Amino acid sequence: MCVGLDTDLKKVPQHLLNEEDPIFTFNKAIIDATAPYCVAYKPNLAFYEAFGVKGMISFEKTIKYLKESYPHHFIIADAKRGDIGNTSSMYARTFFETYDIDSLTVAPYMGEDSVTPFLGYEGHWVILLALTSNKGSHDFQLIEDKNGERLFEKVLKQSQQWGTEENMMYVVGATQGRMFEDIRKVAPRHFLLVPGVGAQGGSLQEVCKYGMVPGECGLLVNSSRGIIYASSGEDYADVAAQKAQELQQEMAVELEKIL
Amino acid sequence: MCVGLDTDLKKVPQHLLNEEDPIFTFNKAIIDATAPYCVAYKPNLAFYEAFGVKGMISFEKTIKYLKESYPHHFIIADAKRGDIGNTSSMYARTFFETYDIDSLTVAPYMGEDSVTPFLGYEGHWVILLALTSNKGSHDFQLIEDKNGERLFEKVLKQSQQWGTEENMMYVVGATQGRMFEDIRKVAPRHFLLVPGVGAQGGSLQEVCKYGMVPGECGLLVNSSRGIIYASSGEDYADVAAQKAQELQQEMAVELEKIL
Repeated sequence: MCVGLDTDLKKVPQHLLNEEDPIFTFNKAIIDATAPYCVAYKPNLAFYEAFGVKGMISFEKTIKYLKESYPHHFIIADAKRGDIGNTSSMYARTFFETYDIDSLTVAPYMGEDSVTPFLGYEGHWVILLALTSNKGSHDFQLIEDKNGERLFEKVLKQSQQWGTEENMMYVVGATQGRMFEDIRKVAPRHFLLVPGVGAQGGSLQEVCKYGMVPGECGLLVNSSRGIIYASSGEDYADVAAQKAQELQQEMAVELEKIL
Repeated sequence: MCVGLDTDLKKVPQHLLNEEDPIFTFNKAIIDATAPYCVAYKPNLAFYEAFGVKGMISFEKTIKYLKESYPHHFIIADAKRGDIGNTSSMYARTFFETYDIDSLTVAPYMGEDSVTPFLGYEGHWVILLALTSNKGSHDFQLIEDKNGERLFEKVLKQSQQWGTEENMMYVVGATQGRMFEDIRKVAPRHFLLVPGVGAQGGSLQEVCKYGMVPGECGLLVNSSRGIIYASSGEDYADVAAQKAQELQQEMAVELEKIL
């Protein structure tokens, strides 16, 4: 399980707004409460950038806190970057050197030289968008070529010439249900980052049934809003811990089936 | 003409590194030198983010300086953002409210609900990736469906149901040459942001021949490295002005043909 840190000041308990850095205060409490139940955290850059320099200070503090206090938890910068080679190199520097974060989500539209600059960092992972959780995933990702191959399948195939199972994962939305079967035909063992359970309505059971790698798992299922905004009262951290534990237990049931 | 502010501390004149904020000092000098020859500036976010919070302070100062000193110049945040609806809304807030920048480049892979949140801001523009300037543009953007329609053409068509000629432009790389004819078949009058002349090798003459809208222009041609790094000596601003003027004069020749 991965906990998404999409920290929105409009949704955090309002008593936190009196704090000097409400975003970091909220994140720290959520992290301390949920760490026993998850293996990864995924801060979503949009929510920090929206507050300009101040937001980026909160982001930096969050990353520093995670690395110091929970060094065994995996960190995903959810930033959906991707640009021409020399620009992607700068983004790689940003996330893999400046912030030294374990992994970054990357958009594939611009092709090989927009992705490969992220793959040159040992111990760091690219998480490439394949089939996303939103309604708009149907607009382009499902387009079929003459041979019936869909765009997301092409992304999965082509990108396996650039990276390996050791430095590349894919984003596949939990809302895609049975489509995980098709994903596994092309990427049988890659780790998949799976957003979309909880607020977006994806089914954990379906995701596990069609997406798990037998004997290994191969899924990193993310929940953001369903955990971090489960309560808007002063008990928000306790309730987040409870929701995280519930989801972790549901996952344990699924894991027992394949391990 | 648009001047790209891809400010890389490894490439700026080394005497600037003694300044308190070398990125802003460089940008300010480049802006003052080139403003008479261009109508727009395009800071590339990767180059600021790479320096963490410090880089974002330089970015903020650059935007503030542009808005105060050159209020009639159009500003493009080249950030290639795009995510599920609620996240794209946060990015829209970042660039159109927090920084109040005129326009933002957006990646289309995630479809409609990843793009539309940017279209709700009056006087602000989305610049959607269509056919990019890099080699990787061939990997996915040219994929043909059963009817021979290519992905970039689908992006152009579909997105015209989301935005208009008054709030949406497209990125088409100068390196695509004759492909501008195909772009104009689907998007006859939209403004195109055209990177890739200069360092990337695109031909201004070809771009204008196949991409200009008769009587209107319809092109915003960007040069970054070819102008801002034309000299690495103390004369960098003067040489940038000279390169900008040369390019502007080449453009004037092309403009005369259609106006």
